[in-house]
Amino acid sequence: MKPSPFTPTNLSDVPEVSGVQFATGEGGIKYHGRDDVLLIEFCSNTVVAGVFTKSKCPSAAVEWCREHLSNDARVLLVNSGNANAFTGMKGKQAVRLSAQISADIVDCDIDEVFLASTGVIGEALDASKFIPVLKDCKKRLKPTNLLNAAKAIMTTDTYPKANFEKLNIDGVEIIIAGIAKGSGMIAPDMATMLSFIFTDMPIAKPILQNLLEQYVGDSFNAISVDSDTSTSDSLMVFATGRAQEKGVLPIIDMNDKRLALFGAALERVMFDLALQVVKDGEGISKLMKISVSGAQSKQSAKKIAFSIGNSPLVKTAIAGEDANWGRIVMAIGKAGEPANRDRISIDFGEHRVAIDGERANDYCEETLSKYMKSPEIFINVNVGVGEELATIYASDLTHGYISINADYRS
Amino acid sequence: MKPSPFTPTNLSDVPEVSGVQFATGEGGIKYHGRDDVLLIEFCSNTVVAGVFTKSKCPSAAVEWCREHLSNDARVLLVNSGNANAFTGMKGKQAVRLSAQISADIVDCDIDEVFLASTGVIGEALDASKFIPVLKDCKKRLKPTNLLNAAKAIMTTDTYPKANFEKLNIDGVEIIIAGIAKGSGMIAPDMATMLSFIFTDMPIAKPILQNLLEQYVGDSFNAISVDSDTSTSDSLMVFATGRAQEKGVLPIIDMNDKRLALFGAALERVMFDLALQVVKDGEGISKLMKISVSGAQSKQSAKKIAFSIGNSPLVKTAIAGEDANWGRIVMAIGKAGEPANRDRISIDFGEHRVAIDGERANDYCEETLSKYMKSPEIFINVNVGVGEELATIYASDLTHGYISINADYRS
Repeated sequence: MKPSPFTPTNLSDVPEVSGVQFATGEGGIKYHGRDDVLLIEFCSNTVVAGVFTKSKCPSAAVEWCREHLSNDARVLLVNSGNANAFTGMKGKQAVRLSAQISADIVDCDIDEVFLASTGVIGEALDASKFIPVLKDCKKRLKPTNLLNAAKAIMTTDTYPKANFEKLNIDGVEIIIAGIAKGSGMIAPDMATMLSFIFTDMPIAKPILQNLLEQYVGDSFNAISVDSDTSTSDSLMVFATGRAQEKGVLPIIDMNDKRLALFGAALERVMFDLALQVVKDGEGISKLMKISVSGAQSKQSAKKIAFSIGNSPLVKTAIAGEDANWGRIVMAIGKAGEPANRDRISIDFGEHRVAIDGERANDYCEETLSKYMKSPEIFINVNVGVGEELATIYASDLTHGYISINADYRS
Repeated sequence: MKPSPFTPTNLSDVPEVSGVQFATGEGGIKYHGRDDVLLIEFCSNTVVAGVFTKSKCPSAAVEWCREHLSNDARVLLVNSGNANAFTGMKGKQAVRLSAQISADIVDCDIDEVFLASTGVIGEALDASKFIPVLKDCKKRLKPTNLLNAAKAIMTTDTYPKANFEKLNIDGVEIIIAGIAKGSGMIAPDMATMLSFIFTDMPIAKPILQNLLEQYVGDSFNAISVDSDTSTSDSLMVFATGRAQEKGVLPIIDMNDKRLALFGAALERVMFDLALQVVKDGEGISKLMKISVSGAQSKQSAKKIAFSIGNSPLVKTAIAGEDANWGRIVMAIGKAGEPANRDRISIDFGEHRVAIDGERANDYCEETLSKYMKSPEIFINVNVGVGEELATIYASDLTHGYISINADYRS
């Protein structure tokens, strides 16, 4: 597979998060010669928050996590190669067995095990395969290396996705570090997307859940590769609370002044990971940043932005370095949201292409053609009916996407 | 451009419709060396019914037709090469001038002129170009050849689309004949799609309008190439009433027993033209027929069917002859419509692949692989929550689509 042109040139080391230990191993779930299982052990009293796919056909692991979200977390087990989705009773049994194997190995309650699976849909997962690999992983658990953890959960990803923030709270260095995977079947609500974020900050579960839901809209739910939504999307944040031992008091109140600092850092980690996902979109050659303003509501702005970002005709035009703004008009029109055709303006980067419902007077094909060669294309639309705005990120549509997806399963 | 594998092998002659005369000519709107203007003249008292794009950014011609739909029709002027959409005041002026030129040439009222334009969005149409070509067309008007008319309105189409029905009403032979164009930017509500249907049946305008709205849901609004909806979609039916001279009494009542016969024939013409459009979808290699049953409402069934038919991952799997039914599950799940995951069944043609939320016991990869080589793939889904059903038709997504659309405008 051709690597994304947005592959990071140097993947920096991610710092340890106190109370979190990792190991990866070869489970032979589907792939061979690469790690496909990730075991994470958390210290006692680790709280967890999560948001999951809105698919009406969620995977067995997603259902398991939703049911257990009110518990503390001691284990996260992730595998690639098999999504264990649409596997009926066998899938439910596989999830329970996976949780039991993990609980036995880490010596915790089965209800404290969280699970995520990514890969092919419809094939029953053979959970017994976890026994040898988890036994082996258990021996190798250590607080690093998160980048290897990110590698173990890749499917069609062309680079591992990790990021972190260090912040100072009460004079103590706090870490927020996360990983993500996802490349195709990426759309809001959410993507074929797994992301796990870890912090040593002591924070109450409802507050963590609140932050997560607050920031997911402009990060993981503001990206699209192909408008397709997976059965297995999971974003979970685990807070070990270990910084409490260094004197940091827990955040237990939404009015806690330290929440702004912590929240902003968490938001940056989430946003960066989401951007890494879309920048590795299957077959990507260019990234579109699409801002829609002048809308009647933020929701309406976002719907129009996604109508543009998901349009095959817009995506192919961008791939072809063609400033075909007529297709942007088409995509605004088909969104079905309030828009005043005769007030619409469209900019590509700094270049105004249309204003008041027709081509701008100073429109210059040559200037635009030059701009369209950029790796990141900023499409800025005003729909002329209100004051609300939203921004989303989307990949283009290339021969690479077709090549990857016309024979992924076989 | 590579012709569609569904190109009809012999385009049969389409019979004349009394009261309808055609001519095509080279207007030089955009293309050179081919006809790009179609002039149609109707006899007095021709009634017209129409449905148009639901785009919030409709073309100037669409707005004109909507405003004049209560009038009789004397002229239909169609051009390809320029959609005259998103052209602001210039677009409105171009439409009025086009109508005036046509009215002068045919000697009718400007309000009896109907217009349709297809092609690039955002470029102002130079209506003065119509003067010489329409003067020339006027001299050559004759009741045939409808197939040439279909050729003049093609853009990325690889074959002209026409069809007809003959029926016997009151002992008289009645003709219903139609043409269509469209290949990309095709989605329900409706497509970049123009279709014009002509009949000599005497029928009251409200009844004709009623029939059109009744049948459009399962024909032109049940197809999708790329989920993109044009600014210019127009479907109009013109009834000259000329059969009245042969003794056929007009249909002026919804309870008229002859309506069933006439309606069924009109429905067949509409369905066949719609199918011709999707079968010429840009880059098509295979046609998907997607039936969703067991849904809570027909609308819900249709939404799920389009979620499948528009999914890039489903489309590429079909193109790759891969029976990747996991992607069907994904597309059902992302539709957001009621579905019982553990009751879903999926068939590819005669072959059951999933039942009760998991893979069927007698699933046979080899049999399915063989089936996937067929040019038409029938995907039959039951979502297990109700009794309603819908069927839609969609093309697959191939390298051909990317090639056509990554440099269409330049």
